[in-house]
Amino acid sequence: MDYLARQRRLQASLSERRLDALLVTHLPNIRYLCGFTGSAGALWVTPAKCAFFSDSRYTEQAHAEVQGAKITILRKALLPSIGEWAARKLRGKTLTIVGVEGEHLSLAASRRLSRSLSGKCRIRESSGLVEQARLVKDADEIQAIREAVQVGGGLFDRALAMLRPGVPELEIASALESAARKAGAEAMSFETIVAAGARSALPHGRASQALIPPSGFVVCDFGVILHGYCSDRTRTVWVGQGTAEARRVYTAVLEAQLAAIAAVRPGIALEKVDRAARNMLKKKGLDEYFTHSTGHGVGLEVHEAPRVAQGQKDLLQAGMVITIEPGVYLSGQWGVRIEDMVLVTEKGCEVLSPGNKEFKAI
Amino acid sequence: MDYLARQRRLQASLSERRLDALLVTHLPNIRYLCGFTGSAGALWVTPAKCAFFSDSRYTEQAHAEVQGAKITILRKALLPSIGEWAARKLRGKTLTIVGVEGEHLSLAASRRLSRSLSGKCRIRESSGLVEQARLVKDADEIQAIREAVQVGGGLFDRALAMLRPGVPELEIASALESAARKAGAEAMSFETIVAAGARSALPHGRASQALIPPSGFVVCDFGVILHGYCSDRTRTVWVGQGTAEARRVYTAVLEAQLAAIAAVRPGIALEKVDRAARNMLKKKGLDEYFTHSTGHGVGLEVHEAPRVAQGQKDLLQAGMVITIEPGVYLSGQWGVRIEDMVLVTEKGCEVLSPGNKEFKAI
Repeated sequence: MDYLARQRRLQASLSERRLDALLVTHLPNIRYLCGFTGSAGALWVTPAKCAFFSDSRYTEQAHAEVQGAKITILRKALLPSIGEWAARKLRGKTLTIVGVEGEHLSLAASRRLSRSLSGKCRIRESSGLVEQARLVKDADEIQAIREAVQVGGGLFDRALAMLRPGVPELEIASALESAARKAGAEAMSFETIVAAGARSALPHGRASQALIPPSGFVVCDFGVILHGYCSDRTRTVWVGQGTAEARRVYTAVLEAQLAAIAAVRPGIALEKVDRAARNMLKKKGLDEYFTHSTGHGVGLEVHEAPRVAQGQKDLLQAGMVITIEPGVYLSGQWGVRIEDMVLVTEKGCEVLSPGNKEFKAI
Repeated sequence: MDYLARQRRLQASLSERRLDALLVTHLPNIRYLCGFTGSAGALWVTPAKCAFFSDSRYTEQAHAEVQGAKITILRKALLPSIGEWAARKLRGKTLTIVGVEGEHLSLAASRRLSRSLSGKCRIRESSGLVEQARLVKDADEIQAIREAVQVGGGLFDRALAMLRPGVPELEIASALESAARKAGAEAMSFETIVAAGARSALPHGRASQALIPPSGFVVCDFGVILHGYCSDRTRTVWVGQGTAEARRVYTAVLEAQLAAIAAVRPGIALEKVDRAARNMLKKKGLDEYFTHSTGHGVGLEVHEAPRVAQGQKDLLQAGMVITIEPGVYLSGQWGVRIEDMVLVTEKGCEVLSPGNKEFKAI
């Protein structure tokens, strides 16, 4: 990953925002900018320099990982110490505007930081500067995402092989997760969803002790983290003899998903991609059961910008990686969701995790 | 879990803090108060009532889980919608002070909430109200923690059985995690640490592709989440023929851990427990290599209040559950950490995860 180039681009954007410094505290943003993968740290970015801070648990790791920034290991609490350090650095200077990541910095942390900075510093909420850069993935990131998708995609067959009535959802999740670990995944990118029967109507039905029933849909939604990058994919299969109604609803969701994928290209508004899925379900009288948005960005975080949702007027750009995942949830009965990750290309998009999505009864 | 009693206690504390309402947004606090286990929600607590808010992904789950609070499913963004709802509720009232959880609510979310509340509402940072209640565990919680500790504790033998030179750290982590899932764990309580050889000198050495070397310490630090409650335990073993120096350092860490455990009783300051461990290492000339605090609270979160650390003057109380986990880290060589969870009892403490902690070479 070309961390120095990322730092330079961010540094160039500081003056446009009239910031003398930006304090980056959101860990995925820190990783994006300098490579640090630990759980405690902050990056102070000025137009000329970057300074990285962590605590003594991360002395070795910081020196091994961090690029393009001077490393300081603090003995006291992170933000007040950085505030004091900055106050010393800035002594004698005129008013300094320090941007903070308001979407991630807590009210209390911001207060502690303010208090320790000198009177000539002002904190300004400057959210989304790094997230904006992360929207469009560079070649190294796309490669990392492809690898994560490949590992994640290979796991579904494993779930399929185990899926039969009477098996606990958790056992299937466990097998998936174990296979993910063996394939080198650092972790799952979120709590594995294996939701069977009536539980498939829960859009977020984490795998439970419930047994796969004799008949009904099973939603499997899971992803892995590989080299820091996430995968995210959902497949829904029917256990038992498929009914006409199950086929009808499944096919409607699949058509909605394909319609949204067909709409993906640079320059289209996010809400239009969402609408493509929603309109297709509307034709089948199922849109009221599609109760979430169509997708989200994926990268260092499994849910990141942009949101593929109603009211989102921003335009897709080549290099973005998003999910397309419409679903229909019939409370108390069952639900269906079909999800792929797609890369926006110059001319349209590439589905990163291809594979058969036809209705499948097992 | 007696959610209603918890709500009543919190409600009684609002007037002491001169709050007309508290908006609880930290998910473990929401779970503690009303039982909701999803990933998006908020609980509005006034002296007389509780109101719970989530989005359409959680309609079913909220109705199945939430106790003692009226449920509203919102169609738009959580905090602005709650702000608008509250503004309608409070119309015509005099100045209303709404407490927010400043340690967890972001600067941006707080701004959005403020903006949507009426002019007669003021937000006040009121951190720690629920965390204060969570410090002392009730009987149901202690039972849940015991069960998590039991499941977590049983996994270490599995790691031991696999530990030999040439096995990747990740493979051991994977086996542990798979066994945890089969035992019913919802998830691991943090990213499993299996750190071998020179990597054992990293206090947070997450399991990697690195192979167990022919000789050296291996630190295994892991925990499970069962019914929402966490376990956390560390064992360090030597691979190969033990050296005198390895034994000396291991024994010093063990003595430090036992000294800290011996100090645990109601009424003692947290810093004194920390000091008990630190002083023991000082006698062996090893205190400078003990670079973190002695422990932390465990419950719905794997790291929660209190902190067993230098400068912490608060007193232990019966019913608290903390870790005792001193370590020594010799950069580039190896490290040792030994960790147990202990329950503070009326007369002293009970080590929740007993078991042999003597130096072990395998």
